[in-house]
Amino acid sequence: MSGVLYGVGLGPGDPELVTIKAARLVREAPVVAWFAKKGRRGHARAIADGFIAFAAEQVPLYYPVTTEIPFADAAYEQALARFYEESADALAKRLDGGADVALLCEGDPMFYGSFMHLYERLRPRYRVEVCAGVSGMSGCFAASGQTMTWGDDVLTVLPGTLSEQDLATRLATTDAAVVMKLGANLPKVERALRTAGLFERAVYIERGTMPGERILPLARLAGASAPYFSMILVPGNGRRP
Amino acid sequence: MSGVLYGVGLGPGDPELVTIKAARLVREAPVVAWFAKKGRRGHARAIADGFIAFAAEQVPLYYPVTTEIPFADAAYEQALARFYEESADALAKRLDGGADVALLCEGDPMFYGSFMHLYERLRPRYRVEVCAGVSGMSGCFAASGQTMTWGDDVLTVLPGTLSEQDLATRLATTDAAVVMKLGANLPKVERALRTAGLFERAVYIERGTMPGERILPLARLAGASAPYFSMILVPGNGRRP
Repeated sequence: MSGVLYGVGLGPGDPELVTIKAARLVREAPVVAWFAKKGRRGHARAIADGFIAFAAEQVPLYYPVTTEIPFADAAYEQALARFYEESADALAKRLDGGADVALLCEGDPMFYGSFMHLYERLRPRYRVEVCAGVSGMSGCFAASGQTMTWGDDVLTVLPGTLSEQDLATRLATTDAAVVMKLGANLPKVERALRTAGLFERAVYIERGTMPGERILPLARLAGASAPYFSMILVPGNGRRP
Repeated sequence: MSGVLYGVGLGPGDPELVTIKAARLVREAPVVAWFAKKGRRGHARAIADGFIAFAAEQVPLYYPVTTEIPFADAAYEQALARFYEESADALAKRLDGGADVALLCEGDPMFYGSFMHLYERLRPRYRVEVCAGVSGMSGCFAASGQTMTWGDDVLTVLPGTLSEQDLATRLATTDAAVVMKLGANLPKVERALRTAGLFERAVYIERGTMPGERILPLARLAGASAPYFSMILVPGNGRRP
């Protein structure tokens, strides 16, 4: 009997925002794996710290290359594809041995999650179960006190990697927006928000629900870039009796 | 000292998808309140059932009118506005008495949550804290095994109440989509999905993560309407090494 692969969403950062199910799945797993930058502990691993069983085998999966902004570069794509294959093989070895594996995922596994790369590779051969988590953006809605979507509001989730024109057009035609993948895209995203007339309503959040959390109106943020764990929220303004 | 109002996100339906923090806030609350349809127990109350303290005061807040599809009708708006005022007063009375109040919220409180109506009314006078929850849509991503957003995908969350033209245009210009508020809008949403060329990729989910969960390709759903706890997912198809 092969083991089961669990994709376990651990929420936005605060270990208390882990679900009861995720805590149980991590606690019961004989093998725990996670993605991390080389030389770092890894965000998902940090959230799960209090839940991992003493005797569990721990399998860090270190990205060969990492950057906040995805490269169009073919060599980068190839290196990542190879990395996901090797990671899938590493987990398959444990699953073949009959051990269940919990793959730790920050936020929600099916929402921009690296887990999905292993999910696609392993589910033809193994039982794979996904445990939803509080998304990073939901954590930020609460942390910043932004009432994001009302009634018939449309919400658009945008990566900051889009072109300025594309961002501006999409921002101008939505009620509420979340902009992620800021990094060096921040000045471009700010210009697009100004074009769309939303700059004054935008809220900047860094490390939402985590130590070092920082929340301020975007208009007060003076910076040419933003770290990985940051996003911009534009709350909706829909029907509210 | 006034009490604190907690907006407690309880996730999509499965009580095991409640966060550790939400379980604690509910357990510790001397007063627990929730919105429900008249004559019903209420979805949020059902999820929280195992967490409410024996001695807690329970305050159901029954909608005077409910319908899945919001009316533009002024009388409906007025009735709801009055209801939210009365509900805010009911909670203010407990907060003034020094009791903390946990307002139970299905899904994520800041994401189309009724909680926001009381949040806006009570936060000028009381300390209000929000506990993020797993959103209904995140629960559905996992339940249906849909890898929703990849890399630079744009996600659009749409209410089925939009016009067919508006829905079709927005669907045609997004990578991934979630359509909520289906109800009698279902045939219109299906037509818009066909126009946008997404009908074959769409997945229908009813009561995601709950007893009676039903998941099928939208193309196999034959029906003229859909219940309240249903949504349509169109998974993204972005860059994946």
